[in-house]
Amino acid sequence: MNYSMILYIIGKLLTVEAGLMILPFITALIYQEKGYFAFGVTILLLLVLGKLISLRRPKDPSIFAKEGLFIVGVSWILLSVFGALPFVISGEIPHFTDAFFETVSGFTTTGASILNDVESMSHGMLFWRSFTHWVGGMGVLVFVLAILPKSDAQNLYIMKAEVPGPACGKLVARVRSTAIILYGIYLVMTVVLILLLIAGKMPVFDAILHAFGTAGTGGFGIKGTSIGYYDSAYFDAVIGIFMILFGINFNLYFFLLIGDIASVLKSEELRWYLGIIGVSVTLITINIMPQYHGVLKSFRYAFFQVASIITTTGYTTADYSAWPGFSQTILVTIMFVGAMAGSTGGGIKVSRVMIMIKDAIRGLYKMIYPRSVRSLKCEGKTVDKSMLSGIHCFFTAYVMLFVFSILLLSLDQHDHVSNATAVTACINNIGPALGVCGPMGNYAPFSNLSKWVLSFDMLAGRLEIFPLLMLFSPWAYRRK
Amino acid sequence: MNYSMILYIIGKLLTVEAGLMILPFITALIYQEKGYFAFGVTILLLLVLGKLISLRRPKDPSIFAKEGLFIVGVSWILLSVFGALPFVISGEIPHFTDAFFETVSGFTTTGASILNDVESMSHGMLFWRSFTHWVGGMGVLVFVLAILPKSDAQNLYIMKAEVPGPACGKLVARVRSTAIILYGIYLVMTVVLILLLIAGKMPVFDAILHAFGTAGTGGFGIKGTSIGYYDSAYFDAVIGIFMILFGINFNLYFFLLIGDIASVLKSEELRWYLGIIGVSVTLITINIMPQYHGVLKSFRYAFFQVASIITTTGYTTADYSAWPGFSQTILVTIMFVGAMAGSTGGGIKVSRVMIMIKDAIRGLYKMIYPRSVRSLKCEGKTVDKSMLSGIHCFFTAYVMLFVFSILLLSLDQHDHVSNATAVTACINNIGPALGVCGPMGNYAPFSNLSKWVLSFDMLAGRLEIFPLLMLFSPWAYRRK
Repeated sequence: MNYSMILYIIGKLLTVEAGLMILPFITALIYQEKGYFAFGVTILLLLVLGKLISLRRPKDPSIFAKEGLFIVGVSWILLSVFGALPFVISGEIPHFTDAFFETVSGFTTTGASILNDVESMSHGMLFWRSFTHWVGGMGVLVFVLAILPKSDAQNLYIMKAEVPGPACGKLVARVRSTAIILYGIYLVMTVVLILLLIAGKMPVFDAILHAFGTAGTGGFGIKGTSIGYYDSAYFDAVIGIFMILFGINFNLYFFLLIGDIASVLKSEELRWYLGIIGVSVTLITINIMPQYHGVLKSFRYAFFQVASIITTTGYTTADYSAWPGFSQTILVTIMFVGAMAGSTGGGIKVSRVMIMIKDAIRGLYKMIYPRSVRSLKCEGKTVDKSMLSGIHCFFTAYVMLFVFSILLLSLDQHDHVSNATAVTACINNIGPALGVCGPMGNYAPFSNLSKWVLSFDMLAGRLEIFPLLMLFSPWAYRRK
Repeated sequence: MNYSMILYIIGKLLTVEAGLMILPFITALIYQEKGYFAFGVTILLLLVLGKLISLRRPKDPSIFAKEGLFIVGVSWILLSVFGALPFVISGEIPHFTDAFFETVSGFTTTGASILNDVESMSHGMLFWRSFTHWVGGMGVLVFVLAILPKSDAQNLYIMKAEVPGPACGKLVARVRSTAIILYGIYLVMTVVLILLLIAGKMPVFDAILHAFGTAGTGGFGIKGTSIGYYDSAYFDAVIGIFMILFGINFNLYFFLLIGDIASVLKSEELRWYLGIIGVSVTLITINIMPQYHGVLKSFRYAFFQVASIITTTGYTTADYSAWPGFSQTILVTIMFVGAMAGSTGGGIKVSRVMIMIKDAIRGLYKMIYPRSVRSLKCEGKTVDKSMLSGIHCFFTAYVMLFVFSILLLSLDQHDHVSNATAVTACINNIGPALGVCGPMGNYAPFSNLSKWVLSFDMLAGRLEIFPLLMLFSPWAYRRK
């Protein structure tokens, strides 16, 4: 492996993290909070470390698949380790395990929290917590690629390893330009959302932080009852719609920008995504109607919760753990489906689900007519074998990780529903689950071991497993 | 489709079912129970119907994949419909839905029961109930193939559709001889088990019925507390070991018979199967030790329960729903794994799990070295692409069915654990689950809709989904 190039990029990454931390540092100063010291110390540490390990640009800048996966896996762990320091140094989250969990939850846009009383946190810390969502949503390394100097043709491997979904292509010829375009769209949409929230009279600070959580499909709230705190149909509608928008493949926005509306309308994945949302909202609306006395109110809560869960955001406006079992089961099901590939959302991704279902139908056909030849089409193109095989491997690894995580969590004395849905909510980067970690609870009751397992799951879910597994595989370190 | 040949074979099948029912008919007569009438009526009905639709042998006996799947799917449904009649006619299970559920549970070797008081059933009915396990274990159509006249070269498609597991080969050149060999081994092992149980002073009737349940890996008990009723370490050991033996691919016994011990020792699937059992028993023994005060007792209960669950039998000697969550989670996990392909056990099958895991590891390797060529080996041979694709399609269909079934069950007002594990226990043909249908409960509390869904799941699990799905697919009825 090209270790000098790996170190160089990680050095850049730490410097970038220092830069990102300036925003919460300023926030702490504005609100005259002690937290500024914790951010200051961490920023200095990151700058010194970052500079030290990226002193000189390596002669050989080549990066292959192996290096791409490795950089992404290690970067996300380091990012979270250093990102957790301000919480520990300031004493607002005194234990490192908790602080690490909370930071991983932030960067991976999960939104699972160990905080019993979020409203007692300082503004600076709340800002940092939500800001990690925003950065993690589009990808930190994509950000690094966007600002790194040119001539990084082979950075595609890094981008492929960080951007979720089975197929990741460049929008334009150069990786760096693609990264800039993606972040541009992302930034503009976030600003629009902030303005819409402020227009609805949400306090500016709240509007910015909730926009971060929505854009990254993260879901960290700053109130004990999440978005439900405001009890506003307007906010529910705005945030609900924007969650769905941020769950759409960003390539489609790029097509919109260049006027290629046909490509957007033709997107099979988009139709499946909206279809699943439509069906889920309808079923839940009908199912919870007796509870809310009226179709409008039921629709409002059902729409928001479905949008929040399928995009793996995790905001709540209602205590869905008090809904009928049928509605809860639908929510848990769409936790697994997740959002579209190439969006900021997590989960298995609609495109993978779609391809697997189509492949199973083809399998049935092949059993009936063993000699038939029937190709698997997706988005009008034949799915090539290596992509299909990749999807199946991902799914197997995903199921294995899911099972092992539940096994480890069951060493705690919580009930099965809490264990299973906690893993579901973390591996799919959602946040709230059912049971002890339901919409009205949090992850504090879990043991340290469980918190480490869930942190691993969140990272594995965000990075789609293989970059993390790779760190533990002997092949990674073998000389060729 | 060759409908005349389909009718012919189904006619034969109904006649065979009439023949099988003679045994419980005689049992009822011996115990002087009224049940003999119900069996008599059903036998007559089956004989008349069976004769009517198989009056003349079709000129064209050709059967292809399509017909094979269709015959198996329809046969198992009809078998269960008629098998349920004695329960309804005798009034011992008055509602058809319940009787159908119980019969499907019997033939599919699930062992899930809706009976609140099994000990109040008549001997004849108990015999029939357990006998369906024995017949369903090795396969009714395999039995029909064993007794049908010769020249049925193309019956391989029927056998392939009925015998579980990704690969089904003929042991000897002719399908009929293969079927006879399989049933021969099966019968001998069952008789040995009956003798061992009688040697331990189990009443003869009990011994025969428990042997049926063990051989078919079914699990219907005849006592309220299943095998725990006898509280005998000897019975636990004998039944425990025989459950594991019946979970082994029968081809291996054939190899043993012809002295090919090398093939048995080389079997990768066997090593995985025994390995999973060993690890599970060890972990559970340690985990439940505080509850049973002593390693021997813990080992006894852990060994029996692991053997019972991984082979998808479902007998119990202890109330495992009172064990720690960790042990319960292990049990639920091995519910999915199931026994070896080509055994009488259900579940996903060890070979499928093994191949999927190996494929995922290969996938990781391919991500690290995209240009590498690394073939997937299993049992020393390269797994061909169509088999791998078949396994993935099966798994996708399996997961989809699992999710939809839980969704439908959640319309009842039971808890999530009951819903999810009921589907798990039925789709994998185990029987007892957790919650309302745990080892001390049964499936009576579920609604009729849920019972139909679970019946479908049991059939789908036993037939490995595609023969049942095929009945609902328009392709099946299309002229070519």
